[in-house]
Amino acid sequence: MKKGRLEAFSDGVLAIIITIMVLELKTPHSADFSALIPLIPVFLSYLISFVYLGIYWNNHHHLINTVERVSGGILWANLHLLFWLSLIPFVTAWMGENHFAPQTLALYGLILLMCAIAYFILQRTIIHQHGNNSTLALALGTDFKGKLSPLLYLIAIPAAFLSEWISGAIYVGVALLWLVPDKRIEKRLKKEE
Amino acid sequence: MKKGRLEAFSDGVLAIIITIMVLELKTPHSADFSALIPLIPVFLSYLISFVYLGIYWNNHHHLINTVERVSGGILWANLHLLFWLSLIPFVTAWMGENHFAPQTLALYGLILLMCAIAYFILQRTIIHQHGNNSTLALALGTDFKGKLSPLLYLIAIPAAFLSEWISGAIYVGVALLWLVPDKRIEKRLKKEE
Amino acid sequence: MKKGRLEAFSDGVLAIIITIMVLELKTPHSADFSALIPLIPVFLSYLISFVYLGIYWNNHHHLINTVERVSGGILWANLHLLFWLSLIPFVTAWMGENHFAPQTLALYGLILLMCAIAYFILQRTIIHQHGNNSTLALALGTDFKGKLSPLLYLIAIPAAFLSEWISGAIYVGVALLWLVPDKRIEKRLKKEE
Amino acid sequence: MKKGRLEAFSDGVLAIIITIMVLELKTPHSADFSALIPLIPVFLSYLISFVYLGIYWNNHHHLINTVERVSGGILWANLHLLFWLSLIPFVTAWMGENHFAPQTLALYGLILLMCAIAYFILQRTIIHQHGNNSTLALALGTDFKGKLSPLLYLIAIPAAFLSEWISGAIYVGVALLWLVPDKRIEKRLKKEE
Repeated sequence: MKKGRLEAFSDGVLAIIITIMVLELKTPHSADFSALIPLIPVFLSYLISFVYLGIYWNNHHHLINTVERVSGGILWANLHLLFWLSLIPFVTAWMGENHFAPQTLALYGLILLMCAIAYFILQRTIIHQHGNNSTLALALGTDFKGKLSPLLYLIAIPAAFLSEWISGAIYVGVALLWLVPDKRIEKRLKKEE
Repeated sequence: MKKGRLEAFSDGVLAIIITIMVLELKTPHSADFSALIPLIPVFLSYLISFVYLGIYWNNHHHLINTVERVSGGILWANLHLLFWLSLIPFVTAWMGENHFAPQTLALYGLILLMCAIAYFILQRTIIHQHGNNSTLALALGTDFKGKLSPLLYLIAIPAAFLSEWISGAIYVGVALLWLVPDKRIEKRLKKEE
Repeated sequence: MKKGRLEAFSDGVLAIIITIMVLELKTPHSADFSALIPLIPVFLSYLISFVYLGIYWNNHHHLINTVERVSGGILWANLHLLFWLSLIPFVTAWMGENHFAPQTLALYGLILLMCAIAYFILQRTIIHQHGNNSTLALALGTDFKGKLSPLLYLIAIPAAFLSEWISGAIYVGVALLWLVPDKRIEKRLKKEE
Repeated sequence: MKKGRLEAFSDGVLAIIITIMVLELKTPHSADFSALIPLIPVFLSYLISFVYLGIYWNNHHHLINTVERVSGGILWANLHLLFWLSLIPFVTAWMGENHFAPQTLALYGLILLMCAIAYFILQRTIIHQHGNNSTLALALGTDFKGKLSPLLYLIAIPAAFLSEWISGAIYVGVALLWLVPDKRIEKRLKKEE
């Protein structure tokens, strides 16, 4: 039951974060289609952040599935993750409104990096409590994607000042990398049944 | 349980989308009743979108009821639907603020079309996974309404430039068409009991 | 399960409506306490609406408890209620920002009246489906409070143009009348156990 | 089941309150990093309020866990708590935008005090209904932290006018005091199993 409430609260926060971003698509006062053009970068940054938050929701879903006992540590590691995720609407809006300027791409990457670290900490907290032979520990294995992503963000942040395209391509690339749901945990859960 | 979380997250997003739209009814600074007059088109566009989102919530409810196993494909097809639905507040506000100008009616129709396509994809994904003899597949049958609606949107989009009234009438008409909840699935579920 | 989702969605919408109102308390740009004074009527109108929405949530909770089968009719009667409730933040803000001007008090009463009517329709829809000997039908009895409230709103609407105080006193009075949770249903449910 | 809905509604309201605060981080129109500097106090006040709301969510979670029967009194004591918590985004924004001016720190403390009192009332209402030998009553014991916090807020409010640092330090200190989840209730629940 405790676990249910952790999920419900996380779902609530994620649902609001994802929907709040759309408020940045501010209604143009003109009815011309041309009034929509300045909104294109805002829309694109909304799209990429929507995908990222979808990925987090999806993986969070699989992650919490493996939890058996919710401790105070897990609760706070989860809130810590939600804190960094809650900053995504801000960096998304900044990036969109300033047409993917280098500084905004760099800050976007920094927040993605903090989210990745927070997710990693949540994972470690769950494994720490459930043991190295727990479903999650075995399912993660070497956790290749989980280790590659923060590395790629670390490259994308300075790269934004060389070319916005490199940095942007890395963010899209990492999203594509994760778009495939985490089969490792799903497989492991099936094996155990 | 997985299914429960899919529903809870979708409900959260839908509840926020539906309520965020009301923020477009911006408080007039004057206390005169005449200050409310410019809000009438905003109110009307809120009303029609509220009904559309109510219909989606209602049908989504019946649709997910038929799901037995939530796969990654269903999760993403569902997020894809939520993405297009999340754009409804934007097009609603644009349409309301510009007094149902042709361009705004056309874009409104385009987003409704994308929502209908996304809903169709979600349906196909569920059927694909549960088989052609599943509750959903049998309940849908020829899926007349599901095929008619996108067709009508396709007519309404160009029609907006001929007359706002035709386009508007089509949107109201499709809403009325769906206002009756999807009895097909309800009936099928009863039969199987 | 269906019932659970009806509750979850209603809870989500109510939670958002109640919290969206607080956004009207706009941050003053000065740090002086005097900068808070113009916010007092906004705060008071927030307070009364918070209590009203709390009452609706509370009674809705008891009402849905008596539902055994959720039909399409109940779903739509519930959405209809949520629609009118979703307009409360708008009339609250209008009333607060214009220091309880007669027109704003009258519109506030009108929306409260529509909510009361929508609640009544939801009640009738549930009773219609569950029969006149159902828990709800027997619990409601003559439904004195449910019939008195709309009558009082009907008086408060024109009264606002005579004196803001009469109208305001009626809204506070009706809220106090309902602040006591609906013991009738609670008692009836206990009897049946 | 009743209890589930109380939790779900509270979770919804808390999730929205926590996320609404992030809207105060208004997108700067310039893409320079220097444009972020004025946002630092807004960010810091968001951080401290996020932690406070996290603490309330966490403890609320443990508190409601001990509830066996939800009465009207508990429902209203809970709504009363949510009312004061819903004012946190306002005082957070006022404090952040005015760079922790004394008046804003004092009002922040006042709202924290009201939340603490509302939480205390909720606790007493639950204990009153479940008896002095209930899980909660035994778990709380002398409730040292619960009594110390309001006292510290009472000191912090006037202290803000002497030095912003004293007042700020007290708010951070109380947060740290509570960051450790309420082990008392957890332990008591384990003992009873």
